[in-house]
Amino acid sequence: MTSPFADRLADAVERRSSQIVVGLDPHPQSVDGGLQGAEALCERVIAEAAPAAVAVKIQIACFERYGADGWAAWQRLAAVAADQGLLVIADAKRGDIGLTSEAYAAALLDGPVDALTVNPMMGDDAVAPFIERAADTGRGIFVLVRTSNPGASALQDVLLADGRLWHQMLAERVADWGTRIVGESGLSSVGAVVGATVPEHLVDLRARMPAQPFLLPGVGAQGGKPEDLAPAFAGHPAGGLVTASRSIMFADEPGAAAEDLRARVRAVL
Amino acid sequence: MTSPFADRLADAVERRSSQIVVGLDPHPQSVDGGLQGAEALCERVIAEAAPAAVAVKIQIACFERYGADGWAAWQRLAAVAADQGLLVIADAKRGDIGLTSEAYAAALLDGPVDALTVNPMMGDDAVAPFIERAADTGRGIFVLVRTSNPGASALQDVLLADGRLWHQMLAERVADWGTRIVGESGLSSVGAVVGATVPEHLVDLRARMPAQPFLLPGVGAQGGKPEDLAPAFAGHPAGGLVTASRSIMFADEPGAAAEDLRARVRAVL
Repeated sequence: MTSPFADRLADAVERRSSQIVVGLDPHPQSVDGGLQGAEALCERVIAEAAPAAVAVKIQIACFERYGADGWAAWQRLAAVAADQGLLVIADAKRGDIGLTSEAYAAALLDGPVDALTVNPMMGDDAVAPFIERAADTGRGIFVLVRTSNPGASALQDVLLADGRLWHQMLAERVADWGTRIVGESGLSSVGAVVGATVPEHLVDLRARMPAQPFLLPGVGAQGGKPEDLAPAFAGHPAGGLVTASRSIMFADEPGAAAEDLRARVRAVL
Repeated sequence: MTSPFADRLADAVERRSSQIVVGLDPHPQSVDGGLQGAEALCERVIAEAAPAAVAVKIQIACFERYGADGWAAWQRLAAVAADQGLLVIADAKRGDIGLTSEAYAAALLDGPVDALTVNPMMGDDAVAPFIERAADTGRGIFVLVRTSNPGASALQDVLLADGRLWHQMLAERVADWGTRIVGESGLSSVGAVVGATVPEHLVDLRARMPAQPFLLPGVGAQGGKPEDLAPAFAGHPAGGLVTASRSIMFADEPGAAAEDLRARVRAVL
């Protein structure tokens, strides 16, 4: 029986002394050689960056575009990362009504995948099947709360009649959803995606989601800085997972880039 | 050069005298025989229901769960439907930041697929690559605006400080996004997903999105009634696409069930 994702995460962060998630986003604009080139690059990045990292985040879109072969390739990469002792996060941002969310959960929270990103726009009944599956199988989800892209604010930061921002209301729901799978670590297996590009929201979101591990994309190429992320770690050293993709994948030395980021994050704990 | 999706849609609705979209959602809870059983059932449903329909909507989650083989299977079904003269909508509800949305658009708006469902929660820059691709290739997108599931209201109907509901604000953005690909039919290739389960929103949403074709899921098993959908067709007979999945797929005679729904919709035009 697998223990809850939250506890495996807490343990891995402590054991590896790392909060770094290596994002594997081999977009064809940046990678030669089609699917084979993408897979080879990702394998190399995993091998070199693993010692400094706690997890990889696989951007499913980059593989899905190659159809059936792409699907097989990302599953192989998930196994390679797991063999290195890394947790595997499938970044697929799925969300749909009941039976369909069940189908996505079955497709993606399987094999060596430990956690999945989930889009909550459709509401409680869209997210529930992912939580069910996560609870039953010792896996986790990261729900989009405030994303890192420039356009996020128009829909996610809109002011509600009750004075909250839309994403603050969503954050409180995510905290509710997560209460049923809080592990011994005090962390929930229902986490939140919060852009590292908007550190001004971190204190507020940590208060609204005290038990959620935050997946923090946007460091590096998108402009987020590890030095601004301290509030994510209030309460637990695994409270923040700092995700970098391009700045590690396309570094001359991915291992050194990951290690540099690891040290910068450790300095703000 | 393919003509714009909106015009191909308008033409197909007129030619086939149908607004019916057959939803292919072969969930394993309801279909025996694994992926092979799902594919065989969908092929039979396409063959029998095609004369009464204008399009099929393929639920990608039901195939993705079978990994690489599932991906190949839904692409075969898309080709089968296209051979019958049906438009093909990939129901995948994708949405992500720039390059990743580009990757999803490349993966899904390809081959015999005419349109794709898109989740807009991440904002303008998440949706833009889908619109780009649609404009360049004569394809369309349907943006989630107000979904058909019971839990939708908690996040989509929340009241904003300016007096609008969140989904009304979103509807106005979708109308804006759609202005650059309005076809000769007067319809835009940027459509909207509006649940047939919430007909009380249709008059308002038609006013906010005058050029958008509405994809209307939720008829049949979810409780939506064709008789309540008249406001969708104000302005254009292709303004509403009535989607039924379980009530056609699992009917004793899928062809008769589709024809019955077709006639009920024609009666409210």
